[in-house]
Amino acid sequence: MIGYFDNQKKEYVIKDMYPLRPLLNYIWNEEIVVNLNQFGIGPSSAVNQGDLRRVVLDYRLVYIKDRDSGIYYAANRNFRQLNFERFETHVGLGYSRIFSTYQNIDFELTLSVPEKDFAEIMHIKIKNSDSKVRNLSIYPYVRPFVNTTWHIGYNQGEWDDDLQGLIFEHNGFNLENPYQTIFFKSDFLPKAYETTDDKFIGRYGSIEHPLALKNKSLSNFDTVSEENFACVFQYDFALKPGEEITINLVIGLCKERTDAIAIADKYLKPGYFEENLQRLDQVHEAYIEKMVVETPDEYLNTMTNVWLKRQVSLGKTWARVYGKGFRDVLQDCSCFASLDPETAKQKLLYTLKFQFTNGNTIRMYEPIEPHPYQDGAAWIPATVLAYLKETGDFDLLDEKVGYYGSDLQETVRDHMLRGLRYLYSEKGEHGLILWRGGDWNDSIDNAGMQGRGESVWLSIATIKASNEFIEILEEEGNQNEIITELKAEIEKLKAAILKNGWDGKYFIYGYDDYGNKVGSKDSVDAKIMLNPQTWAVLAGIFDVEDLHKLMDVVEERLKCDYGYLQCAPSMTARDPNIGRMSYFQPGVFENGSVYIHGVTFKIVADCLLGRGEKAYETIKILAYDNPLNPNSGVEPYAVSNMYYGPECVRKKGYAPQSWITGSAGWLYRGITQFLLGISPEFSGLKINPVFPQAWDKVKVSRLFRGSKYEIELIRSDVNKLVVNNQEIEGNIVPVYPENSVVQVKYYFKQHIF
Amino acid sequence: MIGYFDNQKKEYVIKDMYPLRPLLNYIWNEEIVVNLNQFGIGPSSAVNQGDLRRVVLDYRLVYIKDRDSGIYYAANRNFRQLNFERFETHVGLGYSRIFSTYQNIDFELTLSVPEKDFAEIMHIKIKNSDSKVRNLSIYPYVRPFVNTTWHIGYNQGEWDDDLQGLIFEHNGFNLENPYQTIFFKSDFLPKAYETTDDKFIGRYGSIEHPLALKNKSLSNFDTVSEENFACVFQYDFALKPGEEITINLVIGLCKERTDAIAIADKYLKPGYFEENLQRLDQVHEAYIEKMVVETPDEYLNTMTNVWLKRQVSLGKTWARVYGKGFRDVLQDCSCFASLDPETAKQKLLYTLKFQFTNGNTIRMYEPIEPHPYQDGAAWIPATVLAYLKETGDFDLLDEKVGYYGSDLQETVRDHMLRGLRYLYSEKGEHGLILWRGGDWNDSIDNAGMQGRGESVWLSIATIKASNEFIEILEEEGNQNEIITELKAEIEKLKAAILKNGWDGKYFIYGYDDYGNKVGSKDSVDAKIMLNPQTWAVLAGIFDVEDLHKLMDVVEERLKCDYGYLQCAPSMTARDPNIGRMSYFQPGVFENGSVYIHGVTFKIVADCLLGRGEKAYETIKILAYDNPLNPNSGVEPYAVSNMYYGPECVRKKGYAPQSWITGSAGWLYRGITQFLLGISPEFSGLKINPVFPQAWDKVKVSRLFRGSKYEIELIRSDVNKLVVNNQEIEGNIVPVYPENSVVQVKYYFKQHIF
Repeated sequence: MIGYFDNQKKEYVIKDMYPLRPLLNYIWNEEIVVNLNQFGIGPSSAVNQGDLRRVVLDYRLVYIKDRDSGIYYAANRNFRQLNFERFETHVGLGYSRIFSTYQNIDFELTLSVPEKDFAEIMHIKIKNSDSKVRNLSIYPYVRPFVNTTWHIGYNQGEWDDDLQGLIFEHNGFNLENPYQTIFFKSDFLPKAYETTDDKFIGRYGSIEHPLALKNKSLSNFDTVSEENFACVFQYDFALKPGEEITINLVIGLCKERTDAIAIADKYLKPGYFEENLQRLDQVHEAYIEKMVVETPDEYLNTMTNVWLKRQVSLGKTWARVYGKGFRDVLQDCSCFASLDPETAKQKLLYTLKFQFTNGNTIRMYEPIEPHPYQDGAAWIPATVLAYLKETGDFDLLDEKVGYYGSDLQETVRDHMLRGLRYLYSEKGEHGLILWRGGDWNDSIDNAGMQGRGESVWLSIATIKASNEFIEILEEEGNQNEIITELKAEIEKLKAAILKNGWDGKYFIYGYDDYGNKVGSKDSVDAKIMLNPQTWAVLAGIFDVEDLHKLMDVVEERLKCDYGYLQCAPSMTARDPNIGRMSYFQPGVFENGSVYIHGVTFKIVADCLLGRGEKAYETIKILAYDNPLNPNSGVEPYAVSNMYYGPECVRKKGYAPQSWITGSAGWLYRGITQFLLGISPEFSGLKINPVFPQAWDKVKVSRLFRGSKYEIELIRSDVNKLVVNNQEIEGNIVPVYPENSVVQVKYYFKQHIF
Repeated sequence: MIGYFDNQKKEYVIKDMYPLRPLLNYIWNEEIVVNLNQFGIGPSSAVNQGDLRRVVLDYRLVYIKDRDSGIYYAANRNFRQLNFERFETHVGLGYSRIFSTYQNIDFELTLSVPEKDFAEIMHIKIKNSDSKVRNLSIYPYVRPFVNTTWHIGYNQGEWDDDLQGLIFEHNGFNLENPYQTIFFKSDFLPKAYETTDDKFIGRYGSIEHPLALKNKSLSNFDTVSEENFACVFQYDFALKPGEEITINLVIGLCKERTDAIAIADKYLKPGYFEENLQRLDQVHEAYIEKMVVETPDEYLNTMTNVWLKRQVSLGKTWARVYGKGFRDVLQDCSCFASLDPETAKQKLLYTLKFQFTNGNTIRMYEPIEPHPYQDGAAWIPATVLAYLKETGDFDLLDEKVGYYGSDLQETVRDHMLRGLRYLYSEKGEHGLILWRGGDWNDSIDNAGMQGRGESVWLSIATIKASNEFIEILEEEGNQNEIITELKAEIEKLKAAILKNGWDGKYFIYGYDDYGNKVGSKDSVDAKIMLNPQTWAVLAGIFDVEDLHKLMDVVEERLKCDYGYLQCAPSMTARDPNIGRMSYFQPGVFENGSVYIHGVTFKIVADCLLGRGEKAYETIKILAYDNPLNPNSGVEPYAVSNMYYGPECVRKKGYAPQSWITGSAGWLYRGITQFLLGISPEFSGLKINPVFPQAWDKVKVSRLFRGSKYEIELIRSDVNKLVVNNQEIEGNIVPVYPENSVVQVKYYFKQHIF
């Protein structure tokens, strides 16, 4: 057993501490993002001068030594797999807590970050559960990385009397580095310290066996010009039976020593650790309260109510962590709009700054990805629309935002329009949108670099975005010329898609610069690709009946035991006119994996067509407990971005990583807005469930525009909407005055495919 | 005891396998440079597309498992410090050989590189010295690094039937990487293999305890899309008492699989390993034969005859390894001209391509260092002069060489002239050469960035270089106009130095952009700096008597227990008008360390003034066995670039690294040409010894222009030169016809200070 969900505490409890691959948690604020495995080990990163880099390296260990027996061990890592009486990790929302017990010493380590600042808080509890006094030395150890240039002569690490803790500096010439000072302090004065790995681990020791643990005391060695720093404190205790001690530590980075003192003291203030966890709990409780679903599927409930929200929350702040994709942040904001609309709005406005005045956007910021990707603008209207429908706050449209590399400031409405006009201005000889350096599939990064290749998927996405923008303008009611302009463009583009994008039974992905079809029955491989089909549904390119046929092709050609393939078969011929995708190994990433972002589009497409059975089945085979994919390694509480496809015979089904994917947001919306069918509209909450036949009833509690809607979805032989005991025409629950509690019963008889 | 020199084998034998810091060896050819510690572990690097980067990571281990007892260990690393019966490393010239014996299994691992290609050869011998049959599994392990982009989807690692070995590829789109394929093959078909650390070490194993060693057989798992590759073979043997087996392995990088097969087979051909070591031995024997010194100081003899030559050899090919400094390669070539003039010439010509047409040079190539350093041109004439005096080959001067960023091709003579004219064109208001982004002291990188700061040291160096160029032109005899031009420039510049560079008792280092003196008695700190004083001697700026006084100031102000400080006191006030140096911690690098390059200038300066006692004493206090500096950590066989200065109280005397420094070449020339006084001149070998009074006699055998000069230097009460039993006027031994053996006795009565 990997572990279990503790829904009471909103935790996942890892019981198998040595699973197939490390099970990750992310904790973060706006300045720091920490990637923790089940042992609490992993890198902290920050955005530093517009670039994203690792600024504290990846060890966090607490060694315990019994001074009488000389036995020592890393209580949160257990390198040697000693016979711990207890060893488990509680993955929390904003913290990880590792428990261990060895030879009657109970250990607890909670890792969290404060609300602000680049800082981590380590909260350690140690209790003597033995019947005799235990003489223990406790050594917290963190490996900091201060060398932001290769000039180690700038480095020093030392005990600082003003801080009453350790300071590590890389204070170099001409460095505008906001993170050149590392500090490490506890609320309990240590007996001794080390500042270097050389002294603690030893030149010929190891992390499993630090040589300094053989000594009575650490050496208090201050150092300069060091490559391998270490933050180590030693505390000596004589713990009576039943006695427990608590140590709080803070490690962080800042510009100057004076900042360090202020920051450390703020987070070591008595009670801060608990207050901070309470704050986190309130934040997450508020997210949970926004939408509570009760379906017969407990796992689905837990994921929807708790964990998908958390994962989306990472995306809207840190995107893919290695960088902030323009479209990635927007998609997560589309979802986050329902959890915290104000934050979603701020993120949206910030992200729009990375649009060029020509209407196109950059692919990624922090760090800037300069390759000319083409789809950024197509993602803006959906995000704006989601925000508007959630809040009714049309003032957003008049907010002014700058452009990348320009002094121009324009409204959000103008940004959207520039984006769409850019796309329509970029058409090739088949009347489709030019591919340039890539679209959703950023691994097809060379099909359009000559300026001739065209993307069917991007053309479809442009229609979807145009319709979203039109929906906004129509609601505003005063932009008829633009609406007319866009509708004409849509018709032309749709005609071109149907004429040049249709392959007989499904859509191709596009044309490369030399007019070769990509993702076509005529292609050497990758004869069919997933996204043009699912997006044809999302954009409503066809009549419903034809879209059903299209999705049948998807079922037939792209399904595997644990999801739907991005393409089939995988490319095996390396093709410079395609680019990166064709150089990936078969079954890997865009080249034929179960790329989960694509599968979540498929889930939404299913729901839009009322194919709820298929949608739910897809959700289930993606899950960690799919018996047909026992070695995925995935965290039960996180969505991966990929399972290697079946053609990747050496690793099929394995999920190399999770968390950093836009799939979580799409899955959340797929479940809540489409499968359960509770979606915000300008005029109220629309109800249109398509959940599987086996479910008779689902309850949903949803906060919307300041009121609470307690909704029951009841399978029936009629369609009937009852709001506060009154039957209402249609399926839209109107907006009630703020602070109302609205009782909704929706009886429905949908045919589910 | 660290170990001992085995002069017979030209090896240093490391007996203490756990010294203060790792003792390094470098092995290399033109494509690969490998940094090996005493265990044979360390990174391999290559120049890859004009940049220098690490391409194979740093583990090379051979695990031995006794299949009967289950006991295993890393035979060349002994992580757990088991009770090995033998454990030592023989540091050879071009190889390292590690011996160990544990429980009667003798192990020997020789690491070397072939003459060409990015490849390493591992030669393993294992012998059963037990009285019973021993059933052993042997596992060579190397950790390769193939991910030249972050797209792990390009990666695969697998057994290749054509190679009969392992292939690791990162074959990505748009990569012009010559090192995208790694191969690993042995001359003995393994029983099994691994391609990943995950399978060999295990997710929760460690390098000390690879989990795969618990199994009977490795898993033969081929993989794709992997971040952590491993090259591991398993061989099973039943060794009879006294039986020995030998395994040769080759690991390398190349462009394509087909190349891999050709390269691997070439170096696994029977006998190649031994042939290659013989080739290396011949190369080094030739270098040794060039100049054999026999002084009463055995250590000095060993360093001069063997090890300094090796270290200079690294410099002329790989410079500082992290990059190839223009001036660094030139200085090592000045020295290497006496060991292998043809190679020195090729390196010189290659390096001159990195001069701009304006006469200035870049600081470093591979990778390019774009900061505007100013002293490159001042180092060219000395190197050309050294080559000309060694060979008499004046054709060099007419060789045409290009310029950096230009199509212009000009002669070596023109390059020198452009360089000097550039320097004279760059003068400030004190009539001194502009400092720009730095000179020798590249850590004073901001004293002249406004275009006003001036360097006294660079002005002195310009005079020295001018005189060297004039010496060449005068020997050519047909460039009177240029000589006149330069002599006038020298006079002007010298007058400016004496007027504006003199501080009363010594020279300042220069003026910053705001007219503040640097390295002056008026400075806040760094009130005196070493190089302007020693270079005043090297350039002969003053009368001899005044130069003696100047060197007395150096003795008085800059001496410490283990050398001479680059400045005193160290800078403590961070000064943006100085740059990097003032941000270094006190006593670190240019900021007050014993920067050994500077100390070797001082040794030469001493010798030029006849202060042989001081020169020799300086050589002795720099050495690894200086009792006043017991914790330097330095390799006995290599020169460090720095000992931290006494003001660096936390690390004083420690040498963080060795090998990669121009000090070795200067020390070699200091000993041979200046202390022993055997220096090539256009007309013959000049003899002018200044070695210490305590030595009565020194023998030197030197090859020069195709003949062998067997020289005895004998302290006497007259000066007398006897060549082939004939007394000759003066102190220059004329050039004899090629293949002569010339007997030289030089009696001398120099006063040594």
